[in-house]
Amino acid sequence: MGHGGGGAMSAELVENVFAPAFGGLVLAALGDSATLPVGGERIAFSTDSFVVRPLFFPGGSIGDLAVNGTVNDLAMSGARPLWLSCGFILEEGVEMSVVGRVAQALGAAARTAGVEVVTGDTKVVEAGRGDGIYLNTAGIGIVPDGVDIRPQRARPGDVVIVSGEIGLHGVAIMSVREGLEFGAAVESDCAALNGLVEAMLAVAPDLHVLRDPTRGGLAAALNEIAAAAGVGVVVQERRVPVPDQVANACAILGLDPMYVANEGKLVAFVPRERADAVLAAMRAHPLGAAAAVIGECVGEHPGMVVARTPLGGTRVIDLPLGEQLPRIC
Amino acid sequence: MGHGGGGAMSAELVENVFAPAFGGLVLAALGDSATLPVGGERIAFSTDSFVVRPLFFPGGSIGDLAVNGTVNDLAMSGARPLWLSCGFILEEGVEMSVVGRVAQALGAAARTAGVEVVTGDTKVVEAGRGDGIYLNTAGIGIVPDGVDIRPQRARPGDVVIVSGEIGLHGVAIMSVREGLEFGAAVESDCAALNGLVEAMLAVAPDLHVLRDPTRGGLAAALNEIAAAAGVGVVVQERRVPVPDQVANACAILGLDPMYVANEGKLVAFVPRERADAVLAAMRAHPLGAAAAVIGECVGEHPGMVVARTPLGGTRVIDLPLGEQLPRIC
Repeated sequence: MGHGGGGAMSAELVENVFAPAFGGLVLAALGDSATLPVGGERIAFSTDSFVVRPLFFPGGSIGDLAVNGTVNDLAMSGARPLWLSCGFILEEGVEMSVVGRVAQALGAAARTAGVEVVTGDTKVVEAGRGDGIYLNTAGIGIVPDGVDIRPQRARPGDVVIVSGEIGLHGVAIMSVREGLEFGAAVESDCAALNGLVEAMLAVAPDLHVLRDPTRGGLAAALNEIAAAAGVGVVVQERRVPVPDQVANACAILGLDPMYVANEGKLVAFVPRERADAVLAAMRAHPLGAAAAVIGECVGEHPGMVVARTPLGGTRVIDLPLGEQLPRIC
Repeated sequence: MGHGGGGAMSAELVENVFAPAFGGLVLAALGDSATLPVGGERIAFSTDSFVVRPLFFPGGSIGDLAVNGTVNDLAMSGARPLWLSCGFILEEGVEMSVVGRVAQALGAAARTAGVEVVTGDTKVVEAGRGDGIYLNTAGIGIVPDGVDIRPQRARPGDVVIVSGEIGLHGVAIMSVREGLEFGAAVESDCAALNGLVEAMLAVAPDLHVLRDPTRGGLAAALNEIAAAAGVGVVVQERRVPVPDQVANACAILGLDPMYVANEGKLVAFVPRERADAVLAAMRAHPLGAAAAVIGECVGEHPGMVVARTPLGGTRVIDLPLGEQLPRIC
């Protein structure tokens, strides 16, 4: 299961199995999407499959995830997402009303994100060879002129900003799946971030890095950036916005919120002189109201992410090895 | 299972469930891919999921299918396919060597077709919730200036040409899956048709319709074109190239070769004055060596496909209702 978890085992699979087979230099890049030249423009192209369990959860559904996941992957390269494809793998016997509800959620999420589902496909597998509905979306966006956002561009001195409270998606899935309750009900943060990114680019077209910390959480996102750019990252732990319910859930389950998945948050590496403007633009947007500076990019310990703890200590934030919670997206 | 079979039940699912939810006018078009404007160019965008069983079969594998299926969908709009995305859904416990072999096959097929895998994703589901490997590919191609190929453009008078012998993929899958033998071993015709299409466009940039008769076979492809364009189609049954092994297999199993899936064939609707040139160009290409004129497009019986039988009779070739053979691609 760990090979699908977005951590070190996933990276190994890409490096040892897929990259040699496909020989794609572009694939080898660690970004969430590929950037490709078409007629004087640059398009971004990305794909994700979705196998979340259950299909409907507090704050969203597999249909919302399938739109927002791919829209966010495109937005993390600064692209303006425009078009989605959609592939359904249905398990024989799944209720048509369930398929209909997922399709409705997917359509509504696409309208909210301002993208259009333009092509699709459906396959059916026997009962016991699937789990209701699996979905794949691929997406295309246009990268604005002059924008060059990718993990390799992180530079010492960059300010690290997170767009809001972390850990909500992972805890929402855990609570509904395991029947756990952590005080107030926890809803997934599942949302399309392209509008927020557009607001950020309006004040800082020279943003260095954007990343949505999904599987593997903020820890995986920061580690991938540190490794790609050969820089160090220092996080001030007490500045990371962790809501009480997430903190409580993690305490009970022995988890670290830094490793819990998000589906509507981004982390940005911003040139220091733009940090105030970007933070203000984010806080003026509904999806960035709780944005916070959580740390900085440094020249020391390249490839490594460390946290300064509230008590003045330092701990290493490793890339997660495998999967904390299977089928979270 | 019928809802995934590419026949009337699939069409119903798109019409009643997906189209209303997504509200996509482009999706509602019956073509294999969407055509979208980027920077003064037109790109084609298409997706398919692949759930074929077994993963390896005579003449190919799920990796070959995943490349050729999407490349062919793009080529059927006249596009020059360039880039693919690739999403793996792995079942827990699948051998890494099997994943590696599929990835190798996929990479090799991409190189043969002249396309690049540029972005990907991997998810893992529990044992018993998948079947080894499911794959999704989405693809992007560029539509050459002046090319306008889609089912709606079929016109009375058009000559209907098929690129070679039909039914091979379906019979190959059946024979390996059911352990049947039909005389000589049957190999799938799985192949990328973009080179053949390029050769055809070189002599006839004004081609009206191209379609790859996959699920539902030639019968489904011709019915979809007849319905989309509001024209009739007359097929001379004895001109349809059916290899002996396919005829034998179909006789034993009570199937009609017209409904058996192909993965390396196309059917073209060609303006009458271009038919000779197109046929010659096809026969000069390795994947069109057995190309044949099989019928014509007529103004009578709009939306209906009829076959003239060798004995001088006429029969209606209906859209297949559901699935003849599940998980064929």
